[in-house]
Amino acid sequence: MSFELTNEYLDFLRDLIEAGDAQKAAAELCEHHPADIAEVLDELDEEEVLAITTHIPPELVGEVLIQLDEDVRKDILETYSGKQLAEEVVENLDSDDAADILSELDEEKKLEVLSNLEDIEQAKQIANLLTHAENTAGALMATELIKVNHNWTVLRCVSEMRKQAEEVEQVHAVYVVDDNDVLLGSLSLKKLLTTSTRTPIKEVYNDKIHSVRSTTDNEEVARIMNKYDMFVVPVVDDMGRLLGRITLDDVVDVIVEEADRDYQLASGLSDDVEVNDSIFDITKARLPWLLIGLLGGVVAASVIGQNEAELGNIPQLAFFIPLIAAMGGNVGVQSSAIVVQALAHQSVTDTAVRRLRKELSVGLVNGIICALAIYGISLVLGYGTKLALTVGLALLAVIMFASLFGTFVPLVLNKYKVDPALATGPFITTANDVLGLFIYFAIGSAIF
Amino acid sequence: MSFELTNEYLDFLRDLIEAGDAQKAAAELCEHHPADIAEVLDELDEEEVLAITTHIPPELVGEVLIQLDEDVRKDILETYSGKQLAEEVVENLDSDDAADILSELDEEKKLEVLSNLEDIEQAKQIANLLTHAENTAGALMATELIKVNHNWTVLRCVSEMRKQAEEVEQVHAVYVVDDNDVLLGSLSLKKLLTTSTRTPIKEVYNDKIHSVRSTTDNEEVARIMNKYDMFVVPVVDDMGRLLGRITLDDVVDVIVEEADRDYQLASGLSDDVEVNDSIFDITKARLPWLLIGLLGGVVAASVIGQNEAELGNIPQLAFFIPLIAAMGGNVGVQSSAIVVQALAHQSVTDTAVRRLRKELSVGLVNGIICALAIYGISLVLGYGTKLALTVGLALLAVIMFASLFGTFVPLVLNKYKVDPALATGPFITTANDVLGLFIYFAIGSAIF
Repeated sequence: MSFELTNEYLDFLRDLIEAGDAQKAAAELCEHHPADIAEVLDELDEEEVLAITTHIPPELVGEVLIQLDEDVRKDILETYSGKQLAEEVVENLDSDDAADILSELDEEKKLEVLSNLEDIEQAKQIANLLTHAENTAGALMATELIKVNHNWTVLRCVSEMRKQAEEVEQVHAVYVVDDNDVLLGSLSLKKLLTTSTRTPIKEVYNDKIHSVRSTTDNEEVARIMNKYDMFVVPVVDDMGRLLGRITLDDVVDVIVEEADRDYQLASGLSDDVEVNDSIFDITKARLPWLLIGLLGGVVAASVIGQNEAELGNIPQLAFFIPLIAAMGGNVGVQSSAIVVQALAHQSVTDTAVRRLRKELSVGLVNGIICALAIYGISLVLGYGTKLALTVGLALLAVIMFASLFGTFVPLVLNKYKVDPALATGPFITTANDVLGLFIYFAIGSAIF
Repeated sequence: MSFELTNEYLDFLRDLIEAGDAQKAAAELCEHHPADIAEVLDELDEEEVLAITTHIPPELVGEVLIQLDEDVRKDILETYSGKQLAEEVVENLDSDDAADILSELDEEKKLEVLSNLEDIEQAKQIANLLTHAENTAGALMATELIKVNHNWTVLRCVSEMRKQAEEVEQVHAVYVVDDNDVLLGSLSLKKLLTTSTRTPIKEVYNDKIHSVRSTTDNEEVARIMNKYDMFVVPVVDDMGRLLGRITLDDVVDVIVEEADRDYQLASGLSDDVEVNDSIFDITKARLPWLLIGLLGGVVAASVIGQNEAELGNIPQLAFFIPLIAAMGGNVGVQSSAIVVQALAHQSVTDTAVRRLRKELSVGLVNGIICALAIYGISLVLGYGTKLALTVGLALLAVIMFASLFGTFVPLVLNKYKVDPALATGPFITTANDVLGLFIYFAIGSAIF
């Protein structure tokens, strides 16, 4: 059972739709996994998508919808009435996925869906989920879970589990609660399989269990689950009452999104942007950083302008302007990246002072090597001792300065609760460009 | 049950060790989860680590070892004999973790461990795991799993599961195989709980199951598990026989490592490097990219050198050298980053030609906006029409060129099976720096 999306397959579906046989296209497509169906739909245009989705059976539509790109999903959701959404889509979804879809609707339609749900318990649960703040454990969790009372026996537990399992698609863990629904621990399937049926649960459950609060940040949930190798984590309220559970597959999405965001910031993209986005969206994500770079270039121009007289006397000084600027930027980004990753993995226990001292040592080693290299190369290429000395010394100073600056900025940003990954973008490159030129011309005017 | 690593806690342990009471420090530490213990040990120095680990009970040592940083683990492993490793560490570990630890030993010690394992079946399984190539599903999988024959009844199945569960720490899935051990499908716990005990397995198992070959690449495994929201994936050989299974927690590590590597490449770090690494290791990771940047700077210097006469006539041309160089680099990295992420998520279905055409449009829009901006700013700041026109036109050309180049390079690298993330490093920045200067001076000499 494997599926590979090819252009031939897309053309085959497009031809069917064009020939007015969207039903056959849908039937063909529905042989595949909902994730595969979604992958195909993401590639088709709006008209084609709608032609196909009207023929996808209701029990499949929900699963496909939650896997789609947000903009494609939006197009489809608009074609549904609130009543249809309740009866054909939401009814077949887990509470977390249902809440995700509802959160994308306007208030009126949201209410229409909730009031049209046959199962009032389900409606209540979804409405509860919608109250949690974005990017918290509460917004990520689902309420479907299996729980047993610590006073029950293994036998009663198994029979209750059978009942509850009818409602729950996949059994991840069995939670043990007291009479007030306060989470006490978990029960392993292994224990259930290997313990006598008359044993009380309270004698066999595991009370060493990690849980998260509903207000815990998404990324903290990801960190905890990854660190402790957990497949599912229970979510509790401030009283310790069991509210829901978060599974690792949802947390993988959080991890991937976070990694993408850091990568994009480091590459000068201000927005989540994809290959398939429109030219306008891509421009919107790229232009802000370019304009910052532009301003940096203008400032750099005025720094050089202030040294015009010197440049007139020693035009060779201009030769190494790109080198000084580029190296300052490169070193700054390297230093920032190391700090940003350490912060993301929570592995910074050094004090800021120790960190900066170490960075200074690294900068010194790198700086001396690069300075000696450029000094030697410049002499060999016949740029003369004075210019070689100027470039070498300036490079050493720029590398050390950029190391410190690159380390310092993300630490400060993090302290003031700003995403430190911002520091690795064109920000630090631009600042280091300008400061590098200052240093270069200062040393140049001292030496010549 | 929550743990936070603080400097106070580290000092408290250090004081105990210094006072000769490492045993008490170990006892205190062992109250915590193995992942927490490992986190603490990663922060201590070698002597302190060894003082504590001798007091950690054998049944815990293995779990702690596999969570440690590789260099810390190496220090500890050296203090163990092969026999000790077999009896105290490997015996208590899952096959995948055991194989990971063995793969870090030299050949002689590896053999010593395997020959000292009491359970010959376990030794065979670990030896088998060690034959798989690095970064493949085979090297990532564990052999502990629960499998049932399709001819059995639910009753026999449950009783066999009870037996097998004694060997298996955590039950992730129940696999159904035929008499030749060929994987047929899986059995859900829900089905087991809700089906009559006399039903034959072949009537109730799910045959729509995704599996991976043992030779499948790690990252492909991660992509499949993430796409289909799988918690565990079975691994089969070329005949379809069930060899093992991979759980999502291990795949999360693959995803995080891959994201870190891409991020580091984009930031100009050639090696996996961490805040706590030595100055030598950090320098080793940073210096190669810096030297590439240095060479780029030298080439840029010679490009400018060739235009020395022109620069002597119009010294103002030097003002905008940093701007042209920086913008070329920024745009190139942006373009590459979008392609690299698309390749990582396998969402490139566009042909290369369509991709380049789109990138050209984005480059045109960004280029025109930036060119108009810098033209206006230059006029306002009094740099004169000719210089403003030169800078504006050069910037437009540089942005368009850098967009194309940044898109093209990762696509080509990927085609030739080189990690496309390489393109986002200082490579592309440096190349664009140099080419930007060419364009700038060419336009400058045409206009003035």
